[in-house]
Amino acid sequence: MPIVSSKGKAMPESPIRKLVPFAEKATKEGKHIYHLNIGQPDIKTPAVAMEAIRNHQLDILAYSHSAGFESFRKKLTIYYAKHKINVTTDDVLITTGGSEALIFTMGSITDPGDEIIVPEPFYANYHGFSTQSTIKIVPVISKIENGFALPSIEEFEKLITKKTKAILICNPGNPTGYLYSKEEIKQLSKLAIKYDFFLISDEVYREFVYDESEHYSILQEKGLEEHAIVIDSVSKRYSMCGARIGCMVSKNKSVMQTAMKFAQTRLSPPTLAQIASEAALETPESYYTDTVIEYKSRRDILITKLNEIPGVKVAIPKGAFYCIAELPIKNAEHFSKWLLNEFDLNKETVMLAPASGFYSTPDKGKNQVRIAYVLNKEDLTKAIEILKFALKKYND
Amino acid sequence: MPIVSSKGKAMPESPIRKLVPFAEKATKEGKHIYHLNIGQPDIKTPAVAMEAIRNHQLDILAYSHSAGFESFRKKLTIYYAKHKINVTTDDVLITTGGSEALIFTMGSITDPGDEIIVPEPFYANYHGFSTQSTIKIVPVISKIENGFALPSIEEFEKLITKKTKAILICNPGNPTGYLYSKEEIKQLSKLAIKYDFFLISDEVYREFVYDESEHYSILQEKGLEEHAIVIDSVSKRYSMCGARIGCMVSKNKSVMQTAMKFAQTRLSPPTLAQIASEAALETPESYYTDTVIEYKSRRDILITKLNEIPGVKVAIPKGAFYCIAELPIKNAEHFSKWLLNEFDLNKETVMLAPASGFYSTPDKGKNQVRIAYVLNKEDLTKAIEILKFALKKYND
Repeated sequence: MPIVSSKGKAMPESPIRKLVPFAEKATKEGKHIYHLNIGQPDIKTPAVAMEAIRNHQLDILAYSHSAGFESFRKKLTIYYAKHKINVTTDDVLITTGGSEALIFTMGSITDPGDEIIVPEPFYANYHGFSTQSTIKIVPVISKIENGFALPSIEEFEKLITKKTKAILICNPGNPTGYLYSKEEIKQLSKLAIKYDFFLISDEVYREFVYDESEHYSILQEKGLEEHAIVIDSVSKRYSMCGARIGCMVSKNKSVMQTAMKFAQTRLSPPTLAQIASEAALETPESYYTDTVIEYKSRRDILITKLNEIPGVKVAIPKGAFYCIAELPIKNAEHFSKWLLNEFDLNKETVMLAPASGFYSTPDKGKNQVRIAYVLNKEDLTKAIEILKFALKKYND
Repeated sequence: MPIVSSKGKAMPESPIRKLVPFAEKATKEGKHIYHLNIGQPDIKTPAVAMEAIRNHQLDILAYSHSAGFESFRKKLTIYYAKHKINVTTDDVLITTGGSEALIFTMGSITDPGDEIIVPEPFYANYHGFSTQSTIKIVPVISKIENGFALPSIEEFEKLITKKTKAILICNPGNPTGYLYSKEEIKQLSKLAIKYDFFLISDEVYREFVYDESEHYSILQEKGLEEHAIVIDSVSKRYSMCGARIGCMVSKNKSVMQTAMKFAQTRLSPPTLAQIASEAALETPESYYTDTVIEYKSRRDILITKLNEIPGVKVAIPKGAFYCIAELPIKNAEHFSKWLLNEFDLNKETVMLAPASGFYSTPDKGKNQVRIAYVLNKEDLTKAIEILKFALKKYND
């Protein structure tokens, strides 16, 4: 029997999705599950996007240009300008989700065995994309104790080798909710210029910033133009995760021309979803304001409630809609499975994402979980009450 | 300035899309272009699929399961059963186009440096996917003189090394239109079993078979279960290229579990397009029949008209909607650019896909083009008349 490859074997299971079979079983058994495990918001997709789909007048669902609709890319430059990011249509390549933007970026700038430095904990699927690209993630550890702030530049410099092709950050961060300051971005930029590699910033949570903080994009940083690659997506911004539309943005022409060859190979990003995403750019300002107010109040509830649970440690997220919580247990994966398989409170339970999958250093984050606050306040409150009860029962 | 990777540099430009900038320029200059270069059918997408999109009742455009909607996968097994292919829901993984099914397949069964044997000329993007996966395509040459039939098994055996992980065929073939006989599939199957590697069959043109021939899938072949991986797509079947929905089908559980890890990493295939694709399974039988009748008559016109041009050689395609034509010129790429840049007949011209991009052996197919017969009969006739006129003018 022919066998799968070493690469295939090395592919990680998604820590966000690997518990899905247990959840399916629990659901079949009649349990209601509060999903704190996945960044699937319950916020409605803007009506203007959904209407555009309902009103489509296509006879033939045809390929689009490999870089995506030109009209869409052009409108995106206006969107970026509003965020003080100055780019042209040629600097934007539409991809199938932020996922594909990461795959194209890694493909364009790395060869097998190359290295990318990533502050950990990091978005778990960076693991998968780097394994798929047969490159190595070199982690630099950020700590819950200081809110997952940027590790010192010396820590980064220690890790730089001839194979280092980029530093990759997520800003604001999934899973930490950390928002990098302008000063931190400037430090990373200097490093990228000094050692002549790329700075990749996953900015899909750009709008989700709380407490009057301001998001500072790497594309705003003067002098970094040839080094900066931004990963973006409509998934979170418009609660359109299922669209699978993202983009890669860079002023480095050679990178964009290379990424375009990957884009041509897969022909085009999804047409219907581009129609929805282009229309979503007409979303009224109030949608963002309301959404941010909603997430902020959810965050406040979540953090307050978590802090009420004995032994739980949590850093206050300044952006995105996740936090990493340290629980008074030894093995969060075991606990998460137990929640689905063995536990219930009046036929209800919660689903968590064990945080070890967000680290690449072995044994890191074993007692941590990622919590996504994508449930309405009532459900979120209920879910954390259930978690509190479950922790007590589990530890007894 | 940081630079792109060797892999990025090695990525081929799509021969189907690389002339697009010239076409855009020609269009701006007011020329009408008959597109014979790309497999974008003019056939309407089934109304049932388009209606499903118009009637969607979603509030939130959410992620789907990473393997795609279970209901869709289940219905696909019924579709396959109608084609004498016996598979279960677990054997089907929904992907973002046949493109992603190829990427997942290569990722699951190959490591950098591994080899896949492919009869050439082959679908040009196999180049890109293999470069992206840092593996090598080892071509075995099929010839226009005998209609691009399967090369002898001895030719394949000569090329097998320890690094050979699969043979990849396209059946019926893009760009040749060749339909493999049951006997040829059995020969390849024996080889895959003897040397214990995979047989991958890209069967996205399954329905497009002419002259009372019958398509024989590798999944119908007894004993090949653990070796067979089928690549499929809704793009051509329903004239839904822009949906970007395909699937990977195999009874090899270890391959499917590995592919699932790639699928989880990119989260999910596009939701809206899955709605359209699931609905498309309700397309009335008459749609296929009418479509096949239409393509067959286009093929007949195309071949007749091409044979009327002095010096043109063409093999009669038995399936799909392409043919490779040898033209009385030296360099088809130069000719194709000339057609867009310098030539017109009453402000009209044609766009071709130079065939050298469908070969990996250097200098092969330089005087050949791929012609897609995706235009209505009137336009197709007109296009070939223009081609005839252009060839005369070019050679004068």
